Amino acid sequence: MSNPFFQPPSGTDLPRYAGVPSFMRLPYLKPDDPRRADVDIGFFGMPWDGATSNRPGARHGPRGLRDASTMIREMNRATGQTPFKTANCADLGDVAMSPVDQDEALAAAEGFVSAMLAQNIRPFMAGGDHLCTLTVLRALRKLRGEPFGMVLLDSHTDLYPPYFGGKTLTHGNPFRQAITEGCLDPARCVMAGMRGTSYNNEDFQFGYDHGVRIMAIEECMELGWRTVMAIAREVVGKGPAYVSFDIDFLDPAYAPGTGTPEVGGPNSFEAIQCVRALRGLDIIGADLVEVSPPFDPSGNTEWLGASIMFELLCAMQP
Amino acid sequence: MSNPFFQPPSGTDLPRYAGVPSFMRLPYLKPDDPRRADVDIGFFGMPWDGATSNRPGARHGPRGLRDASTMIREMNRATGQTPFKTANCADLGDVAMSPVDQDEALAAAEGFVSAMLAQNIRPFMAGGDHLCTLTVLRALRKLRGEPFGMVLLDSHTDLYPPYFGGKTLTHGNPFRQAITEGCLDPARCVMAGMRGTSYNNEDFQFGYDHGVRIMAIEECMELGWRTVMAIAREVVGKGPAYVSFDIDFLDPAYAPGTGTPEVGGPNSFEAIQCVRALRGLDIIGADLVEVSPPFDPSGNTEWLGASIMFELLCAMQP
Amino acid sequence: MSNPFFQPPSGTDLPRYAGVPSFMRLPYLKPDDPRRADVDIGFFGMPWDGATSNRPGARHGPRGLRDASTMIREMNRATGQTPFKTANCADLGDVAMSPVDQDEALAAAEGFVSAMLAQNIRPFMAGGDHLCTLTVLRALRKLRGEPFGMVLLDSHTDLYPPYFGGKTLTHGNPFRQAITEGCLDPARCVMAGMRGTSYNNEDFQFGYDHGVRIMAIEECMELGWRTVMAIAREVVGKGPAYVSFDIDFLDPAYAPGTGTPEVGGPNSFEAIQCVRALRGLDIIGADLVEVSPPFDPSGNTEWLGASIMFELLCAMQP
Amino acid sequence: MSNPFFQPPSGTDLPRYAGVPSFMRLPYLKPDDPRRADVDIGFFGMPWDGATSNRPGARHGPRGLRDASTMIREMNRATGQTPFKTANCADLGDVAMSPVDQDEALAAAEGFVSAMLAQNIRPFMAGGDHLCTLTVLRALRKLRGEPFGMVLLDSHTDLYPPYFGGKTLTHGNPFRQAITEGCLDPARCVMAGMRGTSYNNEDFQFGYDHGVRIMAIEECMELGWRTVMAIAREVVGKGPAYVSFDIDFLDPAYAPGTGTPEVGGPNSFEAIQCVRALRGLDIIGADLVEVSPPFDPSGNTEWLGASIMFELLCAMQP
Amino acid sequence: MSNPFFQPPSGTDLPRYAGVPSFMRLPYLKPDDPRRADVDIGFFGMPWDGATSNRPGARHGPRGLRDASTMIREMNRATGQTPFKTANCADLGDVAMSPVDQDEALAAAEGFVSAMLAQNIRPFMAGGDHLCTLTVLRALRKLRGEPFGMVLLDSHTDLYPPYFGGKTLTHGNPFRQAITEGCLDPARCVMAGMRGTSYNNEDFQFGYDHGVRIMAIEECMELGWRTVMAIAREVVGKGPAYVSFDIDFLDPAYAPGTGTPEVGGPNSFEAIQCVRALRGLDIIGADLVEVSPPFDPSGNTEWLGASIMFELLCAMQP
Amino acid sequence: MSNPFFQPPSGTDLPRYAGVPSFMRLPYLKPDDPRRADVDIGFFGMPWDGATSNRPGARHGPRGLRDASTMIREMNRATGQTPFKTANCADLGDVAMSPVDQDEALAAAEGFVSAMLAQNIRPFMAGGDHLCTLTVLRALRKLRGEPFGMVLLDSHTDLYPPYFGGKTLTHGNPFRQAITEGCLDPARCVMAGMRGTSYNNEDFQFGYDHGVRIMAIEECMELGWRTVMAIAREVVGKGPAYVSFDIDFLDPAYAPGTGTPEVGGPNSFEAIQCVRALRGLDIIGADLVEVSPPFDPSGNTEWLGASIMFELLCAMQP
Repeated sequence: MSNPFFQPPSGTDLPRYAGVPSFMRLPYLKPDDPRRADVDIGFFGMPWDGATSNRPGARHGPRGLRDASTMIREMNRATGQTPFKTANCADLGDVAMSPVDQDEALAAAEGFVSAMLAQNIRPFMAGGDHLCTLTVLRALRKLRGEPFGMVLLDSHTDLYPPYFGGKTLTHGNPFRQAITEGCLDPARCVMAGMRGTSYNNEDFQFGYDHGVRIMAIEECMELGWRTVMAIAREVVGKGPAYVSFDIDFLDPAYAPGTGTPEVGGPNSFEAIQCVRALRGLDIIGADLVEVSPPFDPSGNTEWLGASIMFELLCAMQP
Repeated sequence: MSNPFFQPPSGTDLPRYAGVPSFMRLPYLKPDDPRRADVDIGFFGMPWDGATSNRPGARHGPRGLRDASTMIREMNRATGQTPFKTANCADLGDVAMSPVDQDEALAAAEGFVSAMLAQNIRPFMAGGDHLCTLTVLRALRKLRGEPFGMVLLDSHTDLYPPYFGGKTLTHGNPFRQAITEGCLDPARCVMAGMRGTSYNNEDFQFGYDHGVRIMAIEECMELGWRTVMAIAREVVGKGPAYVSFDIDFLDPAYAPGTGTPEVGGPNSFEAIQCVRALRGLDIIGADLVEVSPPFDPSGNTEWLGASIMFELLCAMQP
Repeated sequence: MSNPFFQPPSGTDLPRYAGVPSFMRLPYLKPDDPRRADVDIGFFGMPWDGATSNRPGARHGPRGLRDASTMIREMNRATGQTPFKTANCADLGDVAMSPVDQDEALAAAEGFVSAMLAQNIRPFMAGGDHLCTLTVLRALRKLRGEPFGMVLLDSHTDLYPPYFGGKTLTHGNPFRQAITEGCLDPARCVMAGMRGTSYNNEDFQFGYDHGVRIMAIEECMELGWRTVMAIAREVVGKGPAYVSFDIDFLDPAYAPGTGTPEVGGPNSFEAIQCVRALRGLDIIGADLVEVSPPFDPSGNTEWLGASIMFELLCAMQP
Repeated sequence: MSNPFFQPPSGTDLPRYAGVPSFMRLPYLKPDDPRRADVDIGFFGMPWDGATSNRPGARHGPRGLRDASTMIREMNRATGQTPFKTANCADLGDVAMSPVDQDEALAAAEGFVSAMLAQNIRPFMAGGDHLCTLTVLRALRKLRGEPFGMVLLDSHTDLYPPYFGGKTLTHGNPFRQAITEGCLDPARCVMAGMRGTSYNNEDFQFGYDHGVRIMAIEECMELGWRTVMAIAREVVGKGPAYVSFDIDFLDPAYAPGTGTPEVGGPNSFEAIQCVRALRGLDIIGADLVEVSPPFDPSGNTEWLGASIMFELLCAMQP
Repeated sequence: MSNPFFQPPSGTDLPRYAGVPSFMRLPYLKPDDPRRADVDIGFFGMPWDGATSNRPGARHGPRGLRDASTMIREMNRATGQTPFKTANCADLGDVAMSPVDQDEALAAAEGFVSAMLAQNIRPFMAGGDHLCTLTVLRALRKLRGEPFGMVLLDSHTDLYPPYFGGKTLTHGNPFRQAITEGCLDPARCVMAGMRGTSYNNEDFQFGYDHGVRIMAIEECMELGWRTVMAIAREVVGKGPAYVSFDIDFLDPAYAPGTGTPEVGGPNSFEAIQCVRALRGLDIIGADLVEVSPPFDPSGNTEWLGASIMFELLCAMQP
Repeated sequence: MSNPFFQPPSGTDLPRYAGVPSFMRLPYLKPDDPRRADVDIGFFGMPWDGATSNRPGARHGPRGLRDASTMIREMNRATGQTPFKTANCADLGDVAMSPVDQDEALAAAEGFVSAMLAQNIRPFMAGGDHLCTLTVLRALRKLRGEPFGMVLLDSHTDLYPPYFGGKTLTHGNPFRQAITEGCLDPARCVMAGMRGTSYNNEDFQFGYDHGVRIMAIEECMELGWRTVMAIAREVVGKGPAYVSFDIDFLDPAYAPGTGTPEVGGPNSFEAIQCVRALRGLDIIGADLVEVSPPFDPSGNTEWLGASIMFELLCAMQP
């Protein structure tokens, strides 16, 4: 049973729209707070969209997700879990990432995660664009000394070759970079949900060449999501694995608030089932990225993103 | 064949966006109008959200539903029904419910319904938050002298124990209250679509303890909606039953404009099939609640709500 | 291999949100541009909603579709096609259609298409309301000298009898008119996705009487979309056929920005599969109509419409 | 003192967001209602935008204005007037105007007004685009047998020569037409607020040639609105006069929801003062036009339009 | 010089959109935090709209104001003040106010303020609807033992007699109640900006009868805001005074996101000048109320509200 | 009289919402188009927001401004100018600026402008964020060999010292950089409209130290805008000068769609008068920057920005 300090207030005591909105209403602990020593899973934000090739706004993602996440209640009835009771969770704030200097931003992000890891806190990041994920992977790689697996739920592989005249660090490249740098073990990586128009086929080819299991949406729909996730579990295996969830995995009808939406995606019930299927894997870190509030007039994307984060949190627990 | 007085004007005569927007363009009859004597089914609004624990705005629901409902045409082609011809329908206006005094509001609402019942008019209510339904149930109970069944399509059971330090009358409690008060016969009650995070399991437990048939979304998706509705019909049986449709039954991609959306719900085709499956039951009253126009920038929720009301109206007829 | 002049710039060279937004970033060629002689497929707009019986705004459709279409990339990975390389495509601009004089507007539209056809350019029209399609059908009929088939994906048949006191030219009548005028061969016409309330059954009856194959949404969902499209291919056969895609074919959760939305429709994955299934037919022209940007706060409808246009473009090629 | 039947319910009895939304919550009287005999001032809508040269949507204006107008209370504190007590006011509904046939629409509109005039009801019209006004002017002219004066508050003169290849009936021409037809006495016409870019100067020149007093925004701002209105009263004199208020008179910051906004206009305080300054003129009819709800995401334009209508109603009374 | 602990991070260190959004990025201190002993001015929210007679949503005001307030920088250049350096400011969180029980909510609010006062913290409240203010006034009255003055900037007097059949506690009544209860010294109360339609004149009459100085908008515009504020300062005098700012003081073009907007109000420059003119008064507490984010699609109202709060904070300091 | 080729089509021939949206409907000329030799004033976009410290989205500015600018007509009635007839104007497209590499982006932008200048085309840039302006200033400086004057209408001086740990190139620094680099002659620079909270006073101090004439909003309002602009003309004198217009000069009620809005600004009438007052200066280039469409739900900001661009175009001509 976790520490009472880490229990969020119930919506029947303090209404859900009330209070300073930290992630899931968890306590917010600054870097020097001694209570961080007790934290198991650390929520934090990377409010940065400096690698976005299309519509910006993911810098506002962590704020939007925090706001919506206060509507989450304590219990996951479908799984019976009460994740705030089985792990000490906290909001560790946002990384101070320069919006005008990519190198500084990425360095600050990696440093922030490394500090968490040094305190034995599992990172749970809210983006920001997808390049943010690379900084978490790098910090995990340094800590662990060897590559690990990954499950990616996304409409894009993010394995593209350089953009814009040779730029290797954009939100279309993080996993190509992570494989090249040896953060990820491509044979234990699986990607599902890919769709939309493409510049060319180089991303898939890179994945195939390195042994990544890529499942385009047509294959997913044909197999059904249960089978997709069974394959995913098999590919990843029992070793340590990272989970990255790009909100554009979902059809834009469900998640319009994102930078590069692709039509023809799964619905929210399917997405939730996919996340629940991850339970039992050795998840060493996770993220939900690419929520862009300026493109989300109804607020649906923020709410869906926060709901997915809750399911991810549950999947990270026994 | 119903009275010509009760036929709404066709959209090919008066464009659908024209005219004073009563429900489905039906005649609006004030309480003292003698033509109420001929009414079979009475549409009316409860513009009230004083029991809302989360985002407000359902007080604007009746207005929004009236507006959207003027886009409805005369015929349900899927079922072949022309419901304005087989029953005299009218718009009986809105209940004057105090936004600042819950007791007065609930009393006024119950009185309004009782007056309709006294005129032998079947109530068809547009909410308003879900506590509004309790007032209809109470009025029906008084009239009939015994409890009746209910079909609830919703993402929540609304069977929760008291909120906010003991408050038994919120939009999370109406059916607990209705069962406790003896309005509903729990053994003839069925609830489908339940999902989302939960404070705890007390609502389900209350339902189970009283014999309510609760089908969480996972069960619904597993069984398929046809089976779900076959079970529902079996549970309810041939006796009198009320139908309550909370717009948050639908996934927020379909119905963002509501106070407490829960992701992972059914789509609109499925929702319509569920309603159509109710035809043939002995429906003694119905409602559609929790449409909150301020959270509906595209207007989709109002239009979907009005479309569901039309299907409900058809289901209430032979 | 198509002419390099007709290749749109890549989003990795010029960001997708940059530049003057022509359709798919293709070259814009005025009527007197000599390079039109090399064009195989001509995109153009009919910015007109003068036959709209409900909510207007489709006059802004071509502008909105152009804007969103710049997010399209070069390759259709699902089919392996690179349609800008296998046909010379261009943006031929918009027809100058009077918003205040229906006769003039329709004449101008037909003349514009006839000029394209005289240059041997296959027409690919972005509406505008659905009456715009009639002008394309008329021009094609004049050129070809005989009726042809049609696939209509829509929530309405648009086979209604006159509206508003005898008006035969509204967006509810184009195909009744086209059949009556001999543009379409009804025995080779198929319509799928029909749903929503109806004034009466005269439109279906007209279709049945003339041999049009109409598949209401219930039939489509029952059969599954693959079967639906197999039937469609059989009905249309090997002869020349036109494809008309009304954006309200999709459920309003996917496409809220339209004039006459009908709930209970297909999702975007299904819609895409339907379009892909058309490949191999002898498509002599196509359109996507009824996108109304003023009712599209999230921009989803424009983006979905542009994505469907890309799939239609692929389906028009071997 | 007016008839109690014509008193709208107070917002402290029935909340302002409740009830079927007629104009100002007044009784809605159908054409054959005998109580029309007692009506002094008749509100009605012309839900039509078939003469709009730019962004459409004014067909939704009457609906939007009715909705917002229910927030109006009984008393104009600035003037001390209680206009529903000093005149019998009612909502006479909307004209059934064909959206697809301009001639029919204009004929229906003129007929509707003529019927009101025959019952001695002063017309108070909610548009609809500005061509709607012409139908009111024509009906008044027929009744009265001679031209009358007019005050126009607008950003455009609407005195333009034919548009779109000779079309004389667009929303840019009504007053040129009305002067040409002899409805208006140009020497007793005043127009204030004109601004924005122009096709040419022919509209002003037409006005000058016929003796219309046109005050461009620069002159208005230089003189101050009190002086502007003093001039307006002098020009119009003691004879009968019509008042037409185009919502685009206001700066788009105040009224974004309109078809042809022009920046650099007056604010709402100034607009209200202008309307109040009309009191005491012999106002034979009035309108407020060009509110287009699809372009009004905040609802400000509808609310401002309804507020201006209330001030106009007060100005029409002693 | 204030405590470094109380300095918010600069936007050039941590971007303004980053981090957990407390008011003005100040430290958030729970009720039992010992550092509250050092606080001079305490920001807090009353997320409650249970007394709203019209459009709800002010319960979301504190959240929205916190979010926008993170865009505020350290210095008021116009006045030269750096208010976070001259007073220790903190965010004390939100009161847990029941959305379904008015009595409980008001009691909780008053208790929260009393606790602050007991710690010698000046209250600075973000609403919530205007009835929230009454709880602050009551707590201050209890503490001080005698009535005090008030400056109200608002479009309504909120001096209305009971609403909805005798309800004395709505957002239209707080100051009538506060005067009746002896919280306020009416002779030292001034109200400016009043406008809009009115149920009757009883509110003004109550004010006049008790000696409140009420300045309707026409008087304000005639005198000019400098004179208005000079009068206000004179009326209030040197004694202790409360300042209440209702966001609907501003014209809806500036502040659409509020429950009861009234057109014809001041602009934002004028509003700021009014607040600055309060500097030097003995301000014992202040609030900004009636921001309703669901009616604020552009976010302008939240940002304006936060900016006004900053000016109020400066006015509360020497 | 300018070349007929350069006349935009009239809105009475091709409706204003029709056609491919180039700036002001002018011909779009690619870099290698020989007709560029005849161009006097070249519109172009810098779709880039990589230096934005707050809310992003200005990368979408050129697209949004082009779209809205098609509503502009040919004549400026207030000044009598027909600017497309007195200068050959064209749309030269957008600069291909990398969203992920600031150095490359700025170099590309400067190169694009230098190429225009080499063809003797006066640059008229649509931003993008305010750092874009620096690239124009640099190109002009290289061409001319000496510093020049500037008029800045803005709510910020953009003279701030480095941000984010020493970054000198953000949208808060361009003019400090331009003065330091010798592009601008500070003694001939004037800045008006400054307001809002501030990190500190270093920007003003830098300006004062270098002789820039800075007029904060309080001074502007006190003097009146005519006097402000008279001073501006005097400071700038007869020598060459650049004009930069940041849309956040206007109050957010007029221009919500921008990254760093500041309340308390001028209205649109005042802004237009300011621009008109620039006529007669020796304007060697101009821009309008910081329009961010994702924050502009009503589209008002785009329309206002396009309208201001038209006035700037007129001010650049005799």
